[in-house]
Amino acid sequence: MSLTIGVDVGGTKVAAGVVDEQGRILEKLRRPTPSTNPEETAEVISEVVQLLKKKHDKVGAVGLGAAGFVDESRSTVLFAPNLAWRDEPIKEKVERRVGLPVVVENDANTAAWAEAKFGAGRGDSHLVIITLGTGIGGGIIIDGKLYRGRYGIGAEFGHMRVVPDGRRCGCGNRGCWEQYASGNALAHEARDLARVEPHRAKRLLELAGGTFEAITGLVVTEAAREGDPAALECFQSVAEWTGQGMADLTATLDPGAFIIGGGLSAAGDLLLEPIKKTFSAQVTGHGYRTLADVRIAELGPDAGLVGAADLARD
Amino acid sequence: MSLTIGVDVGGTKVAAGVVDEQGRILEKLRRPTPSTNPEETAEVISEVVQLLKKKHDKVGAVGLGAAGFVDESRSTVLFAPNLAWRDEPIKEKVERRVGLPVVVENDANTAAWAEAKFGAGRGDSHLVIITLGTGIGGGIIIDGKLYRGRYGIGAEFGHMRVVPDGRRCGCGNRGCWEQYASGNALAHEARDLARVEPHRAKRLLELAGGTFEAITGLVVTEAAREGDPAALECFQSVAEWTGQGMADLTATLDPGAFIIGGGLSAAGDLLLEPIKKTFSAQVTGHGYRTLADVRIAELGPDAGLVGAADLARD
Amino acid sequence: MSLTIGVDVGGTKVAAGVVDEQGRILEKLRRPTPSTNPEETAEVISEVVQLLKKKHDKVGAVGLGAAGFVDESRSTVLFAPNLAWRDEPIKEKVERRVGLPVVVENDANTAAWAEAKFGAGRGDSHLVIITLGTGIGGGIIIDGKLYRGRYGIGAEFGHMRVVPDGRRCGCGNRGCWEQYASGNALAHEARDLARVEPHRAKRLLELAGGTFEAITGLVVTEAAREGDPAALECFQSVAEWTGQGMADLTATLDPGAFIIGGGLSAAGDLLLEPIKKTFSAQVTGHGYRTLADVRIAELGPDAGLVGAADLARD
Amino acid sequence: MSLTIGVDVGGTKVAAGVVDEQGRILEKLRRPTPSTNPEETAEVISEVVQLLKKKHDKVGAVGLGAAGFVDESRSTVLFAPNLAWRDEPIKEKVERRVGLPVVVENDANTAAWAEAKFGAGRGDSHLVIITLGTGIGGGIIIDGKLYRGRYGIGAEFGHMRVVPDGRRCGCGNRGCWEQYASGNALAHEARDLARVEPHRAKRLLELAGGTFEAITGLVVTEAAREGDPAALECFQSVAEWTGQGMADLTATLDPGAFIIGGGLSAAGDLLLEPIKKTFSAQVTGHGYRTLADVRIAELGPDAGLVGAADLARD
Repeated sequence: MSLTIGVDVGGTKVAAGVVDEQGRILEKLRRPTPSTNPEETAEVISEVVQLLKKKHDKVGAVGLGAAGFVDESRSTVLFAPNLAWRDEPIKEKVERRVGLPVVVENDANTAAWAEAKFGAGRGDSHLVIITLGTGIGGGIIIDGKLYRGRYGIGAEFGHMRVVPDGRRCGCGNRGCWEQYASGNALAHEARDLARVEPHRAKRLLELAGGTFEAITGLVVTEAAREGDPAALECFQSVAEWTGQGMADLTATLDPGAFIIGGGLSAAGDLLLEPIKKTFSAQVTGHGYRTLADVRIAELGPDAGLVGAADLARD
Repeated sequence: MSLTIGVDVGGTKVAAGVVDEQGRILEKLRRPTPSTNPEETAEVISEVVQLLKKKHDKVGAVGLGAAGFVDESRSTVLFAPNLAWRDEPIKEKVERRVGLPVVVENDANTAAWAEAKFGAGRGDSHLVIITLGTGIGGGIIIDGKLYRGRYGIGAEFGHMRVVPDGRRCGCGNRGCWEQYASGNALAHEARDLARVEPHRAKRLLELAGGTFEAITGLVVTEAAREGDPAALECFQSVAEWTGQGMADLTATLDPGAFIIGGGLSAAGDLLLEPIKKTFSAQVTGHGYRTLADVRIAELGPDAGLVGAADLARD
Repeated sequence: MSLTIGVDVGGTKVAAGVVDEQGRILEKLRRPTPSTNPEETAEVISEVVQLLKKKHDKVGAVGLGAAGFVDESRSTVLFAPNLAWRDEPIKEKVERRVGLPVVVENDANTAAWAEAKFGAGRGDSHLVIITLGTGIGGGIIIDGKLYRGRYGIGAEFGHMRVVPDGRRCGCGNRGCWEQYASGNALAHEARDLARVEPHRAKRLLELAGGTFEAITGLVVTEAAREGDPAALECFQSVAEWTGQGMADLTATLDPGAFIIGGGLSAAGDLLLEPIKKTFSAQVTGHGYRTLADVRIAELGPDAGLVGAADLARD
Repeated sequence: MSLTIGVDVGGTKVAAGVVDEQGRILEKLRRPTPSTNPEETAEVISEVVQLLKKKHDKVGAVGLGAAGFVDESRSTVLFAPNLAWRDEPIKEKVERRVGLPVVVENDANTAAWAEAKFGAGRGDSHLVIITLGTGIGGGIIIDGKLYRGRYGIGAEFGHMRVVPDGRRCGCGNRGCWEQYASGNALAHEARDLARVEPHRAKRLLELAGGTFEAITGLVVTEAAREGDPAALECFQSVAEWTGQGMADLTATLDPGAFIIGGGLSAAGDLLLEPIKKTFSAQVTGHGYRTLADVRIAELGPDAGLVGAADLARD
């Protein structure tokens, strides 16, 4: 039986695990990320890998997932703001230290890959995985393979512009999809509502402890589950923008299924039903085509680690 | 030497040609399309194929390109408004009549394929071909192959929504990209300008014979070449929208090159320079990534026929 | 009994009439406008005034209404594009020729004044008259008097911007109200619909003789009266924009009534009902304030002449 | 010499003063507002009036300014959310207690009146006063008199819609002018920028103590004065929207001057210059008309009290 190690390198913690061919995690370790020092981060990654390797002698390769732009040779992280990495040759640094082949991948891609292979996407050849968290992450599966683009930076669809001259985005542009469809967008909607119409946002403010700045995506989800009309209105807005963006992606990619993951996906049908409604209403050629299936993701926060491990296997 | 026949089935004419492995047309025929009668259209297609087949005994297969949605098995046209086709089993109908294997493909895809293999896309593995004509046609090449999507209807990116509640589109939605970036969009801009500010549109009106309704994309292109400021303003708008949509596609696909074809591409650098400027300014992650090359298409109106023939070869 | 003469100076014709204190026209004359020559236009105006004056010896003053910006002293037309007038001292020119006191007023204001005093506005002290024609004309009545603004150019509310970066306007800006709410806007909507969705615009195209360029506001009104869904959709859009602009004017002016005139007002309730619905839904403070009444204008195309005559009376 | 008492009834305090014919305050008093109990509020108002009346025997009338909709007879406050007033007959309640004639007026109107009569508007007959604070307050002066509208609720121009489907407003609508041009709008812009691009908002975050929620209009003004580019960018946006709304108001009202007051006006030319630039660029008919003067308000926070006193005089 062949094993690989997957490492999820985040801005605050490094999580590593030994993963088998069925995507099961045999053992897992965690360390804080010394995020302002690239050399120390490489050291911490190598350390956890070596600890795991010692206990699992069948480990044959290492997959690293990191939040950033990864080059097309899957060796260097071009830019990772949360890790202070710029043109970081992380593959070579870790290989030198651990003596195993290493592949590097964008962390949204590794999570998407795990979902495609072991989660809600099993058996589909053409998938789009959309992760609604702080922003929009995700990945694209074409003919059963992870799609990377020509230069390794595909599937950044959270930065399609959906509103000309719209909300500011951290990428420096305005109107990006993730500013309208994400956990942050949900909180943004609810804070706006509570700021200007506090009487309508009574329940949201209660759950947030009284101040509109403290309203989070979780608070809105909780209130929506109770049936609070203001929270449901915010959910409706985020769901409509999600469905609209899926219609836009369908015009280009015509996938077999969309998998919706991330923190927001915990809301289940509360999110899924209005997404499906907008998606099918807005897709071009509606009525003359087979529509992609829309499903909630099945894997939890370990998906990134599992996907990284599996991508190191080939 | 292996030959194939390509047929471009348009709303007004059927064009067929014998094509060799280098994409050269050895002989070509044309017939008017009896577009309101599907059975007669199948008959006309079969007739021109048989005429060509008689004279070229090495012909091994037939490729049909048609403006419409083609199913994933490349056999049936699901919907082709200009041909009055609905669930038309055109592959089977033509095969029965001509005794050769037939493949069916969307006509924008066949033209894109020819451009990718024999034109401006030669040698690139990841391409987006954008054809700016009446609307936006085009195709996507991934790993050197034509991308069709799960159900055969990919690369309809002219129907991404770029303006919420924007201009009406023939697809029934509003705000589709092709309403802002196409030959029709260029004429639309210029007519609007001439209607409300005739004094500024003097040259455009002259070239159009005096009435704003008669302003076409060609008229605007001619005036722009002379340096007419109103025409250049309209070009600028269409070029910016083209570049913006390319930035959106890049977020998803990260291609190695964009090829700009269609009637508008005859304007050359007049169009290409402002497209490139907006594209590089609007693409997410600008400065941290390698940008796709942007080029003008090399093949002319026979690209659809050549691509259809070539796609029938495998 | 005191009489005055009113003259409506349009781009194609000069219409003059003798008007009594009840707003009744005793006699009327018409001449073509020699519109490219200011001196000849002054001559024609004076000629018709003198003809009328000879037959009605009780005439005490002359009121001129012209499509253009009139200065605050009501003497000079600052700018009238259709008459080739620029800083035209028309009051002095006509007074010299006819030997009667002359006042000059914007023609939308004169028509509004007639409607306020003799038409649907009788008895109201605070009125906004909105004339939906080629663009939006109209006038404002405050405390029973015509409102002119500090420099004579008030009540040009058709040029409030309602859509940032919206449709071009003849005034050189974009997004002006009259581009969304007027007879031209109605035709614009219907042509757009017919251009991209001809199958839905069948009846509109029939009535227009087959081409989308020939669709006019009258054609749409006729089709709407027959119940044609496409025409009604266009009416709905224009009515909503009209109601929205009225809500905006109400935020500033809080009038007692709106009077809707112009060619479009011939549609009656077909127009009035959706206007009222949007107006009351969109007005700020809805539910806590008394809403302005909304009525169709009562006077026809002679309103401009009658108002000009009456304004000359004081 | 005739004296009157002005009372500014705010959500947190009641400020009253004895004012002479030149708008000078002879004596001033303050009390907290018992804002949840209308009866107690009437009591507190009456109490401060009686205290002042005892010491100034020439006082002849009382003017009350309150944040809310006031009926056209200037007697009843129809709706004042911060005071828990609904159809409150405050004139009668206070008159009964103090034995002096009382007039009631909207507090933005009273402040505007003071500015028009004693401040930056002295000598102008047609004015628009725009107060950029939490929202947009202000007033309109026509022919030297305060404009109230037919039902007493004019000059609420902060609720003109400037962006269809735009930012939520406390009035229940979306896209109101005050959501883009006010102290709150300035803070909103800056928080958005700091939230998504913290590296660009470094100075703003420093001045706010580190968290983006703590950025206020004052913080942005301070940073802008130091020349901080991010703060200046936010100022630019608010100034452009202010100038645009002034262009819209000019289309309707054609005033002789705009007076810009409120907290934001403390920024002086930093605000005034970009406002003037946008205003003159966006006004319809630019180049053919005399433009309104634009000035910073001269009176401070006592303007409301002074204006209320003066309006009670006639």
